[in-house]
Amino acid sequence: MKCCDNIDARMVDETSINLDPIQVGGRLTLEAMKAMICWGDGYSVCDNCRKPFRLDYIENPPLKDFHVDVAEWLGMAQARTVPGARRGFQQVAGTYVEKGDPVLIGALAHYTSYLSVELQKGIVREIPKTADNHITAEDTANRIEDVVREFGTTPKLLYIDHVDYQFGNMHDVKGIAKVAHQYDIPVLYNGVYTVGIMPVNGRELGVDFIVGSGHKSMAAPAPSGFLATTEERADEVFRTTQMEGDLTGRKFGIKEVGILGCSLMGAPIVGLLASFPKVKARVEHFDEELANSKIVVEALRSIEGTKILSEYPRKHTLTRVDTTGSFDLIAQTHKKRGFFLSSALGKKGITGIIPGATKVWKFNTYGMTRKQAEYVADAYLEIAETNGLTIN
Amino acid sequence: MKCCDNIDARMVDETSINLDPIQVGGRLTLEAMKAMICWGDGYSVCDNCRKPFRLDYIENPPLKDFHVDVAEWLGMAQARTVPGARRGFQQVAGTYVEKGDPVLIGALAHYTSYLSVELQKGIVREIPKTADNHITAEDTANRIEDVVREFGTTPKLLYIDHVDYQFGNMHDVKGIAKVAHQYDIPVLYNGVYTVGIMPVNGRELGVDFIVGSGHKSMAAPAPSGFLATTEERADEVFRTTQMEGDLTGRKFGIKEVGILGCSLMGAPIVGLLASFPKVKARVEHFDEELANSKIVVEALRSIEGTKILSEYPRKHTLTRVDTTGSFDLIAQTHKKRGFFLSSALGKKGITGIIPGATKVWKFNTYGMTRKQAEYVADAYLEIAETNGLTIN
Repeated sequence: MKCCDNIDARMVDETSINLDPIQVGGRLTLEAMKAMICWGDGYSVCDNCRKPFRLDYIENPPLKDFHVDVAEWLGMAQARTVPGARRGFQQVAGTYVEKGDPVLIGALAHYTSYLSVELQKGIVREIPKTADNHITAEDTANRIEDVVREFGTTPKLLYIDHVDYQFGNMHDVKGIAKVAHQYDIPVLYNGVYTVGIMPVNGRELGVDFIVGSGHKSMAAPAPSGFLATTEERADEVFRTTQMEGDLTGRKFGIKEVGILGCSLMGAPIVGLLASFPKVKARVEHFDEELANSKIVVEALRSIEGTKILSEYPRKHTLTRVDTTGSFDLIAQTHKKRGFFLSSALGKKGITGIIPGATKVWKFNTYGMTRKQAEYVADAYLEIAETNGLTIN
Repeated sequence: MKCCDNIDARMVDETSINLDPIQVGGRLTLEAMKAMICWGDGYSVCDNCRKPFRLDYIENPPLKDFHVDVAEWLGMAQARTVPGARRGFQQVAGTYVEKGDPVLIGALAHYTSYLSVELQKGIVREIPKTADNHITAEDTANRIEDVVREFGTTPKLLYIDHVDYQFGNMHDVKGIAKVAHQYDIPVLYNGVYTVGIMPVNGRELGVDFIVGSGHKSMAAPAPSGFLATTEERADEVFRTTQMEGDLTGRKFGIKEVGILGCSLMGAPIVGLLASFPKVKARVEHFDEELANSKIVVEALRSIEGTKILSEYPRKHTLTRVDTTGSFDLIAQTHKKRGFFLSSALGKKGITGIIPGATKVWKFNTYGMTRKQAEYVADAYLEIAETNGLTIN
């Protein structure tokens, strides 16, 4: 079915249970869908933009209050929307990192963390992962000392993912931030898998910046997200323009440099706002999400030869699994090769796993009902049994 | 009416004729609206993202072809989507401008041009506007020489708006680019009021970069836009990452640094794509848009005391008008003060002009039918007559 001449109608979550690691937290709420339909036109939210002409001052729709509410919800002083978390990284790196400056990044970080430093011509030094795939305060302390020895200065910035995208493991942000602050290093908390998914409080964690993703975890259209910070750092990362035209003397009011004035002028910010009440509510029920996740994880664990590569027990619904010793054995001789698994899942109405993957792969159960989790668990067991694998 | 608990349903273009200078080119086509409804969820277009894992390689929806088509349509070698034109400016400035470097900007440029240089800690030098509000090749040549004298080097980059946002005047991009290239200065063409509105061909204009806005002029949701360039400049502005983790040896494939990997992962790119056939078609009928614009402009000119501040005859549908000698005289004594005009227009179903403005203001007739243009023209005349102004 087409939605217009050149584009198919997308029917993924309408027809299937979706396990896609990056998609499940960004599916729109009904409210966001309705709001997008009303506010889809280009610069829609600018209808009532008045002095000082900034997105975060618009009162209808209530974007001004929304910015305040999000900051408070995150335990931070101020927040701004950004067109994707990566643009939040860019904004922070652009404020603190100059050519040749060292920056510490947890070795499990998303590539956009690295690229945001590359943009500034900074130099990344990694905090290693432990044997069990965690970034620790102890390793952070060691690496800060390494940087001081190598560069004669402390790192200008430190990036830490609360929950990383590779394993969905949870890292000791509080301990890491404490160490970093002993050296006065600002800490950027990457919350793309946590903000909108579980409760996050920057004040309790002791971080300087929180970056969250709207399209990954706040039930909003892409590209969207938040950059929140403390009162102390706000003047730096949200600094206003000092630019002046040399001939005209033109000045540009209180436009913020890092965000280039305004960020999300239409559908994505209205989507974020429309979903916000449900997002605020859902983070308080993350235990239920974990319980559903456990149903699927335990089913997979019971298939002989399957290993859960993520920390166990699970603290997040994103899980990395190794089925080299189970489903991949079937793939060796199956006429569909590695595609037998995605094909079998597809027939059962389950989607979101990379087709052909039978060795190491990831899934995310976020947003499922218990019944759906049980269905997915049963589906994996049935596929395993049908193909002669042993269930323990 | 609410579209959800915390947001009013927006009914602007559904109920009124909209003259908003920045909104009219960004209203969605029916196709974009339908596509957004199908593709609104967060990372929707990533369903079929396969190696090398880049937005511009995705084949379903046909984003790969779309990138090629847009580049060709603009007479450029390559194109990428960006979350708003300002992010295109940022990407180009980030490639060519370092701390203390001089950059030339036409004095009528949008503030985001200036801020994109400020982000790089570059120094803006303006090309003055002439008495009739144009940026010329001659002034460009003079200012390049000024910069060489002041900095001992040529400007690293030159920004020129084809049609500026202040007057909607058209500037001699071809002549300016020719002068700049005599000094090997790369030229950034700001096409936010032209790309998607009238035919634009970068090869004919001789520019190095074209930046266009999806939400301003391509009937797409915000934040969206394009950065297109020549084969020669593509390796610079679309350079791929060289980053490598110092401990892990992690590399990041062919992710592009300037765009931080991917840009528009959902609704906005599908909106751009869905509208593209109609956008390609509509630019070929810009003469009809100008004819409609003329109907309104002539009506305003016939009201004694009214001056068209934009170049005349008009070459664009965005027009700046001075009614200090007409409508503002009424405002002096009217019980609604300056709001009498927007109020009277509102009663006639016309919106988009800043409420209270009766001195200098802008309007944009883009997208109107002839009948609507005649209606708007008559409305202004009737309001003028009712309030005792003379019609010539």
